[in-house]
Amino acid sequence: MSSLYVIKIGGNIIDDANALRQFLNDFAQIPYPKLLIHGGGKLATQLATQLGIETKMIDGRRITDAETIKIVTMVYAGFINKNIVATLSTHHQKSIGICGADAQAVLAHKRQNATIDYGFVGDIDTVNTDFFRHLLEQNLVPIIAPITSDKQGNLLNTNADTMASAIAVALSKNYTVKLFYCFEKKGLLKDVNDNNTCIPTIAAQDIQQLIEQQIISDGMLPKVQNIKTAIESGVEKVSLCHAADLLDIICENSIFGTTFYQL
Amino acid sequence: MSSLYVIKIGGNIIDDANALRQFLNDFAQIPYPKLLIHGGGKLATQLATQLGIETKMIDGRRITDAETIKIVTMVYAGFINKNIVATLSTHHQKSIGICGADAQAVLAHKRQNATIDYGFVGDIDTVNTDFFRHLLEQNLVPIIAPITSDKQGNLLNTNADTMASAIAVALSKNYTVKLFYCFEKKGLLKDVNDNNTCIPTIAAQDIQQLIEQQIISDGMLPKVQNIKTAIESGVEKVSLCHAADLLDIICENSIFGTTFYQL
Repeated sequence: MSSLYVIKIGGNIIDDANALRQFLNDFAQIPYPKLLIHGGGKLATQLATQLGIETKMIDGRRITDAETIKIVTMVYAGFINKNIVATLSTHHQKSIGICGADAQAVLAHKRQNATIDYGFVGDIDTVNTDFFRHLLEQNLVPIIAPITSDKQGNLLNTNADTMASAIAVALSKNYTVKLFYCFEKKGLLKDVNDNNTCIPTIAAQDIQQLIEQQIISDGMLPKVQNIKTAIESGVEKVSLCHAADLLDIICENSIFGTTFYQL
Repeated sequence: MSSLYVIKIGGNIIDDANALRQFLNDFAQIPYPKLLIHGGGKLATQLATQLGIETKMIDGRRITDAETIKIVTMVYAGFINKNIVATLSTHHQKSIGICGADAQAVLAHKRQNATIDYGFVGDIDTVNTDFFRHLLEQNLVPIIAPITSDKQGNLLNTNADTMASAIAVALSKNYTVKLFYCFEKKGLLKDVNDNNTCIPTIAAQDIQQLIEQQIISDGMLPKVQNIKTAIESGVEKVSLCHAADLLDIICENSIFGTTFYQL
């Protein structure tokens, strides 16, 4: 099977115009089939504030009411997505900006929760692998905004980490998938304040021990859960790294980044 | 060659939730390969007003400064585009929402004008017909927002009527294309206030005379110019009709609508 690189970037890159420009320059140079999932950053919150719409968060997740899903659809699937596509075209990359609703690429349902109504938040059901394969076969680079839709025609705000994991897992039936989560650190650090304590490799069965040692904690817990699901479900390896190191890591030319694998 | 229906809807449908719902219900029933180009409506202007951004118009065209292109990209390529896709999925239509920037589907350049700086406004150079053909061959319905990009990576606001005409013309090399402009009237009317004066058919060479008689005037002039270009450049026929009559006209079951053809 041929290789496929699935890259996820978060808000820290989206919010920093220079970092985004540099990242897209690097991303364009990855000489393999690839796709990009991007988060949303602070733009949606800023726009909501400007419009006088209150942003509600529970456990780090945005509560997405009818006004908020309008805003995140505009910002994620409109502004951010199309700017990435237009910028990549200056690097001779033919990319296509989509969200999960397009071609029913990623179908979801509204999150069911007994105590909290998350509103228009999606939990993923299925990934349309044929659609992604057709795009990749035409040498198009899919750029994916974390919005999905359900069978009732609702647009749903969807966690970008989970979306990256679900797409990577689904496509691992057709490709040898390498999944990269780019975030603000150099990798998983033994000492969260010291980039030189980056753990190079972690086997899936050692994750629980690292949680008990609190080396994996807080905001890293849901991210590592997505990583664990991915490597236990067919993704060859998952790397956690700083966006600035991505290209070097792919070219095996960096001491940074943490790679998770299944023994 | 197989038939392709290229449909353009304008702001009057986009701005009316019930009319849009009814239109998409009808559009879903068109039993032929098809694509949809949608305008923007008043939403972008409303959002700009809410954000305190002044909307400047010259000759009915929006002057698109850096803040305004952000807004139209969010509203057209984000909110409107993805809502149409999500609604169509409830009618068992697998559609894909794109703008001209995606896959370099419609490349443009910034409008050059000696006296007026239109800002981020695009005039179309090329249409990527291979890309549209691949989508149509996968039975996907392209839903196209009137945003393009240039070679410098700028997103550009682009007239939706012109975009529909350019796409229809380009695809007429591969398909027998029927182009429909849906607007707020029943067709081209001899008496603009009487829907019963709809002219059923107009040959290209009679257009000039209708302009001289002022039956085609004002806002209709640029629309008819796009129609004329289309039928003189390979599109089989172009119809001007009310969105509510579209399905009946396609099924040859309506007395309304005006069809332009090349003798």
